[in-house]
Amino acid sequence: MPTRWKLTIEYDGRPFMGWQRQAHGASVQEEIERAIEAFSGEAPRLHVAGRTDAGVHALGQAAHFDLEKPTTARTVREALNAHLRPHPIAVLKAEPAPPGFHARTSARRRRYRYLVLNRPARPTLDEGRVWHVPQALDDDAIRAGAAALIGRHDFTTFRAAMCQAKSPIRTLDRLDAIREGDLLRFEVEARSFLHHQVRNMIGTLILVGRGKWRPAQMAAALAAKDRAAGGPTAPPDGLYLVTVDYA
Amino acid sequence: MPTRWKLTIEYDGRPFMGWQRQAHGASVQEEIERAIEAFSGEAPRLHVAGRTDAGVHALGQAAHFDLEKPTTARTVREALNAHLRPHPIAVLKAEPAPPGFHARTSARRRRYRYLVLNRPARPTLDEGRVWHVPQALDDDAIRAGAAALIGRHDFTTFRAAMCQAKSPIRTLDRLDAIREGDLLRFEVEARSFLHHQVRNMIGTLILVGRGKWRPAQMAAALAAKDRAAGGPTAPPDGLYLVTVDYA
Repeated sequence: MPTRWKLTIEYDGRPFMGWQRQAHGASVQEEIERAIEAFSGEAPRLHVAGRTDAGVHALGQAAHFDLEKPTTARTVREALNAHLRPHPIAVLKAEPAPPGFHARTSARRRRYRYLVLNRPARPTLDEGRVWHVPQALDDDAIRAGAAALIGRHDFTTFRAAMCQAKSPIRTLDRLDAIREGDLLRFEVEARSFLHHQVRNMIGTLILVGRGKWRPAQMAAALAAKDRAAGGPTAPPDGLYLVTVDYA
Repeated sequence: MPTRWKLTIEYDGRPFMGWQRQAHGASVQEEIERAIEAFSGEAPRLHVAGRTDAGVHALGQAAHFDLEKPTTARTVREALNAHLRPHPIAVLKAEPAPPGFHARTSARRRRYRYLVLNRPARPTLDEGRVWHVPQALDDDAIRAGAAALIGRHDFTTFRAAMCQAKSPIRTLDRLDAIREGDLLRFEVEARSFLHHQVRNMIGTLILVGRGKWRPAQMAAALAAKDRAAGGPTAPPDGLYLVTVDYA
């Protein structure tokens, strides 16, 4: 019987084409699968909770793989981290998964964070890690617009054309906008999300914050069930997969 | 009469040899002086509150220069930022300085932050922005050790050999260690600091946190007034000049 290992992973999305293996270009999945093979001599497939796009970061991505070789959690973590150097990917935790565990289908809740740097001057230390919005934003208008998205809805308006999900129905549990000086931090939670859903919601809420849209237009855009009724896709730079909860 | 302009500046210290102009290698001072000349046609000298070392970051560095050309605060900020591209330096604020103002000698208080990433796995997103300490740390021991440094003392033990200050006497007003998950954040305040004082204090406190030193050894090290009695210099990566207060 192989052991199923669950990993909690942090990465900087900047140098990667995204999570998923690509014919051309580096991916997080490929680097970790390569590290697993280098350490164990086995080549299991790595399954992930959230397939992040190019440039999107993770603080607590979850993934699993099966290994025949008997080993310890500490060895898995340390060996993978040694083989992942110098890529900006780190295994924060490795643990044996409970029976029937699957990183994607067992996930009960995903939390994303989106960071907007809201000031005239462009980012320096945070270049590639925030979306720079130099215009003044009305936080209360953003919060009013966000409230219209909470709950169970057809999110077609905020879904990428290439999204492969069978249904556009999702339940959004949280979309908070928290102001910390020049930083506007969004915390977004749901059981699962459509492709680009977070970035499309944020891109549209920033239109509301800039006064280009009234907050009430969010509900109308949602009701239109048409991607053309939504605002632009926010850049990947500000997006972080924070945690994936199970059970 | 020229106008004296005060700047509040943010920068990523990684690509620079430090604040101060060098014969060889990029410096923050040189890039900003170059931007001032490109914008104004004048070549005033830029005076700074804290001459940060290579790799040290700033969130709110302060500096001043004199300009004959009449202009506005907004123009100064925007023109300098345009000329500073693509360097990771941003002028957050430009303002006319009060009479007699000098960025270095008028400063009443400087606040530094030092970030320690305290977990087994190395940093990914924060590479170059934190000191990675993989060993477990005893925060209470660190706080007990830090308490011995608060107040007016001869800080020779924590002073770099190359320090040019006339007196080794300084008054340390604050040295707090705040735990936020894997991050141990130090907040350090004084009217002024000796060269490497913050990094030498932090490097020694981490010995205390790792149990290599007892907290009471901090007071003995301070009393020795000998650099050889102190611990190692913490790396520049985790150090940020946060704010400089005037008046």
